[in-house]
Amino acid sequence: MKSSISGFPEFLPNEQIAFNRAVSIITHHFEEHGFVPMDTAAVERVSTLLAKGNDNEIYGIYRLADENAAKKDLGLRFDLTVPLARYVSENSGQLIFPHKRYQISPVWRGERPQYGRYRQFYQCDIDIIGEGELSIEHDAEVISIIIEILRALGVPKFHTKLNNRKILSGFLITLMPEDKITAVIQLIDKLDKITPEDFDKALAELDIASENIAKIKNFLDVEKRGNNDEILQILKGYGFNETFKKGVEEIETVLKILKKININDNFVKLSVRLARGLTYYTGNVFETEFDDFKDIGSISGGGRYDNLTTMISNKKFPGVGATIGISRLIPKLIEQGIFKADKYSTADILVTTQNREYIGSYMSLAKKLRKAGLKTEIYLQDKGLGAQLTYASKKGIKLVLIANELELLDERAIIRNLQTKEQKIIRTQFIGHDVADMLK
Amino acid sequence: MKSSISGFPEFLPNEQIAFNRAVSIITHHFEEHGFVPMDTAAVERVSTLLAKGNDNEIYGIYRLADENAAKKDLGLRFDLTVPLARYVSENSGQLIFPHKRYQISPVWRGERPQYGRYRQFYQCDIDIIGEGELSIEHDAEVISIIIEILRALGVPKFHTKLNNRKILSGFLITLMPEDKITAVIQLIDKLDKITPEDFDKALAELDIASENIAKIKNFLDVEKRGNNDEILQILKGYGFNETFKKGVEEIETVLKILKKININDNFVKLSVRLARGLTYYTGNVFETEFDDFKDIGSISGGGRYDNLTTMISNKKFPGVGATIGISRLIPKLIEQGIFKADKYSTADILVTTQNREYIGSYMSLAKKLRKAGLKTEIYLQDKGLGAQLTYASKKGIKLVLIANELELLDERAIIRNLQTKEQKIIRTQFIGHDVADMLK
Repeated sequence: MKSSISGFPEFLPNEQIAFNRAVSIITHHFEEHGFVPMDTAAVERVSTLLAKGNDNEIYGIYRLADENAAKKDLGLRFDLTVPLARYVSENSGQLIFPHKRYQISPVWRGERPQYGRYRQFYQCDIDIIGEGELSIEHDAEVISIIIEILRALGVPKFHTKLNNRKILSGFLITLMPEDKITAVIQLIDKLDKITPEDFDKALAELDIASENIAKIKNFLDVEKRGNNDEILQILKGYGFNETFKKGVEEIETVLKILKKININDNFVKLSVRLARGLTYYTGNVFETEFDDFKDIGSISGGGRYDNLTTMISNKKFPGVGATIGISRLIPKLIEQGIFKADKYSTADILVTTQNREYIGSYMSLAKKLRKAGLKTEIYLQDKGLGAQLTYASKKGIKLVLIANELELLDERAIIRNLQTKEQKIIRTQFIGHDVADMLK
Repeated sequence: MKSSISGFPEFLPNEQIAFNRAVSIITHHFEEHGFVPMDTAAVERVSTLLAKGNDNEIYGIYRLADENAAKKDLGLRFDLTVPLARYVSENSGQLIFPHKRYQISPVWRGERPQYGRYRQFYQCDIDIIGEGELSIEHDAEVISIIIEILRALGVPKFHTKLNNRKILSGFLITLMPEDKITAVIQLIDKLDKITPEDFDKALAELDIASENIAKIKNFLDVEKRGNNDEILQILKGYGFNETFKKGVEEIETVLKILKKININDNFVKLSVRLARGLTYYTGNVFETEFDDFKDIGSISGGGRYDNLTTMISNKKFPGVGATIGISRLIPKLIEQGIFKADKYSTADILVTTQNREYIGSYMSLAKKLRKAGLKTEIYLQDKGLGAQLTYASKKGIKLVLIANELELLDERAIIRNLQTKEQKIIRTQFIGHDVADMLK
């Protein structure tokens, strides 16, 4: 990957082929679960964007010829969730609920580019939106799909942390006024990145009494006290209040379903520390990380948001969704050799050409090969056979068809496997499966 | 299609499913011919964009928080050809030539929205780029791929006009100084849209003598004087100069190949009037229109450009390419019922649920169905069976699986075809092909 403009990376052909292969695996899984494709416009009203984003990272657009460039009318989306909320609110009359959709599209953020952070990157989202209400079982569905996809991509050891916002807020409300809770949750979100001392200090700065700081730390350590079932039992024992109990119940529902479909504690781990930065989550939240390669941070995450559309509509459309960070994940898999990027062509076979007068005949042969299911490129430059074979080798095209004028007239051709050096003379009238066999 | 913001249309799910199906047919054909995917960033330097575009239609971008919004540094691409030229110039050392790539991506233009014109729309391009030189046979390849794709999409009667810029300019140079030729070609481009009188008047305004106007009109009528071969003979007879002869020869090469692969005069028609607006074309140009539905204009077009990269690099990368106007074409095919948009789901079967305690079991069944190749959605809301069947019907999902607690425990389920009303009791242990059979 390299960037012509800093923060706007582009792939070379072999990387792009690999990236697209990964995306098509993901798309297949989304569609296999009945999710429909969606493709909202890249441009939103600035007022919609600012409802959940901040002007530091949002790109506005303007016509170059316009004098009044900064009128802040339209801008580029910075995620796919805000456009989803807008789209659902606008089109709810024509959607069938629960509305299950996926979208894989670029988003733009005016950030300072740094390792793994881009100004343009892909988001790869699934969401399920209900009209009025949406049962918790959908949370389990979303988590299971993400885990299935990561397995299908060949992602090595990974784990998903699961928590519920109601557990954190139900607990914290026993120690502090409600208006401090968001700030404390944001601190908990940073727990892994700061020292215990800095954590204490930051809490103290929020006027949290030292005995309560101790209680918070004690509570956050509950996840070390056993497996998911054991932790659930401890949390049930606490039962601070209705909010807290509801959070525990929502997690229990999800864990029970996941266990039933063989997604056990090795993959999903209850973690009361998991906060996830975004403020719109209201219930279960989850996040997936590599066991190794911690440098790229989380590779997937999501959660339940019951009030996202209220910024746009007065109808309630609760949702649950997840995103896979493919712009970081797939290059990492390629870099680690887990996902191969060794093809510079989409073709299985190259039809070489030796006689300019017969280009039409070579093209007819290529057409026959395609009919037989082979991806077939034809070489049309006026170069010698040697140069053509080099071209095929460099591109990683496995087979070549070779025929001179005499062979063409005699309806014969040679098929050569450039990797095994095996070759075979075939009758071009019946060209097809015999060639496909050589691909294997 | 509807637009939340004027000029930025969005599809409903059934339209999006149909649109994506069309795009995947196109992608398949591109890849089957050995074209590799490319995905340049949406953002380019304004200086690159302005080399071929104009500031009236180009969108600049700026961070909303930025005071100095109009510094005209970065902007959104208005086509895919300029980014291609930039990409090839930058990465030529790592590309293998001829570089064959396709890109299907949105572009943005700050135009006044009107019927069939959008501010965001998709371009769907293939191009072949040579290093130093690129043989004319590639022009035939590009034309044949486009025609093949339009057939595969079910596009009804259409025809492709073919011309060569060297024929027009070779002829015109016999009548006028070189600096008038571009203006006259642009007039010829509008010939269909203006009256003969206005055409004469406009030429006269360019100081073309009336006898020369007569000669131009006489020349443009040559395409009415027979089939492609007959017209070629007439043009050869003219043989005004080397440029003209070269143009005729380039067209002849293309027509000969196309005939050999059964693309005859019915599909490709030599038309000396075809100009195509873009100034960067230097050789063959072509354009495809519906025989009916003239309202949407051309559905595909392209041509040879030998000097496009010279704006960026001093190396020569001649190219030939074509674009399919999918943002206009596919909605037209849907509107005409040629391409069906009757599916509101990607799923073949809906697993209904009757007992909240057994959601995990229903999900296991769904998983088995997916393993058997069925796209399987599961219904997870807490609703009665009637509501679930209605949901499946509304979405156009053909099959449903129905099982209550007893049936689940007994490893039985009912599969019902909602369209034929056929139903069948199956053993869930071995669920698979028996269900797939009911899909047909």
